[in-house]
Amino acid sequence: MGKVYLIGAGPGAADLITVRGARLLGDADVVLHDALVEPAMLDYAPDARKIAVGKRCGQRSTAQQFINKQIVDAARVHDVVVRLKGGDPMLFGRADEEMRALEAAGIEYEVVPGITAALASAASLKRSLTLRGVSRSVALATYSRAPDSAEIREQVNADSLVFYMGRDSAPEIASGLIEAGRGGDTPVAIVEACSTARERMLTLTLQGLADGEAQLWLDPAQPSLLMIGEGFAERRVGVVEGLLVAA
Amino acid sequence: MGKVYLIGAGPGAADLITVRGARLLGDADVVLHDALVEPAMLDYAPDARKIAVGKRCGQRSTAQQFINKQIVDAARVHDVVVRLKGGDPMLFGRADEEMRALEAAGIEYEVVPGITAALASAASLKRSLTLRGVSRSVALATYSRAPDSAEIREQVNADSLVFYMGRDSAPEIASGLIEAGRGGDTPVAIVEACSTARERMLTLTLQGLADGEAQLWLDPAQPSLLMIGEGFAERRVGVVEGLLVAA
Repeated sequence: MGKVYLIGAGPGAADLITVRGARLLGDADVVLHDALVEPAMLDYAPDARKIAVGKRCGQRSTAQQFINKQIVDAARVHDVVVRLKGGDPMLFGRADEEMRALEAAGIEYEVVPGITAALASAASLKRSLTLRGVSRSVALATYSRAPDSAEIREQVNADSLVFYMGRDSAPEIASGLIEAGRGGDTPVAIVEACSTARERMLTLTLQGLADGEAQLWLDPAQPSLLMIGEGFAERRVGVVEGLLVAA
Repeated sequence: MGKVYLIGAGPGAADLITVRGARLLGDADVVLHDALVEPAMLDYAPDARKIAVGKRCGQRSTAQQFINKQIVDAARVHDVVVRLKGGDPMLFGRADEEMRALEAAGIEYEVVPGITAALASAASLKRSLTLRGVSRSVALATYSRAPDSAEIREQVNADSLVFYMGRDSAPEIASGLIEAGRGGDTPVAIVEACSTARERMLTLTLQGLADGEAQLWLDPAQPSLLMIGEGFAERRVGVVEGLLVAA
């Protein structure tokens, strides 16, 4: 019986995987990777057999069951099996179902975290997810369909909001937040294909998002993240604290 | 004028930094690192001058101003300056003040994300932060003092809640959540010194946390994370979806 490593590939760029993840890819006999994972990431595993699994946006249950079976079967034959998932395995990754399948089959496994898109997007934007005195909580959420405003109000009213996979529902999400009391002038940043060569960024207002201003800009073939909150303004006005630089 | 890299060191383990972060540490002339950063992390920068800055838990404003000045001064003299911060720079990291100081001084900089403790703790616990059909949002929050229950209700009612630096206020946070309508039997996991050799984990209920059951167990010298939500139960009962393994 082999061991399975559920590894987060990070947001896209090959060098934003962890050192541990890259090393384990080098040791792998088999790599079962999300279709979303950038091809350059697989260069860490030159000798491994690589199998693309999963779908780009969401997976049907049967597809997930088949992935679970492939992982378990691979661990019965190989010593080091890597399941490489985009982003972080523990966040919107359906790793839970894979872990439960491995446990039921009595197969040893370990989880190696990855940089989730919210962190990488904040790095690209050069905007903190939290700001002392402005935002002290951040909510990460996803909706596979447009949520109604009551759902949004119940779920997420942290200071900063980050929506994964919210592209198609963006206007509805924005309208729901405005109905729930968020100001229409709340800054919004959208980061698409974060950390890759295709990365693009757009800033607008929550009202603009509700009015569909971003929909034409958004590329349906790329993953994107909606980031909503005072911290994501194009440029904040205020005193630059701590600027005691000698002239 | 040199360039400054604000790099997230990740949760503690030296190999949970990104490949990019490790490479840039190898290129660094100077490394200004948080006191919290594990010593093994600095082995990536054998030739750099290393300067410990910052305090373990929170920093007074004057200390942050001095750090800003040190970073700017270093970039005036050296080509590659690394500011190495525990976890991720954009989450509870006060990177914002450092970025504004660099911008005001006209110094080029880049942010390299790091694994935040919530992701690494979920990996150690082998519990997803989000679960299809159970939890579709997660809030990351911090309170430097005990929040009142209205604040908690307003700030964080995502499905999964993660509190950074909540050790001393843990009973008040738990009481506030129960007052705000969370069940006393909601599972809680605490992960201390995540990913290091000193890592420890405790699971209890929200009522137990409110009653102070964790306070004796917690080590005031270690960072810890409170993780609250249905997904953090010791062992969930349910059908293991997708277990179609051949016997």
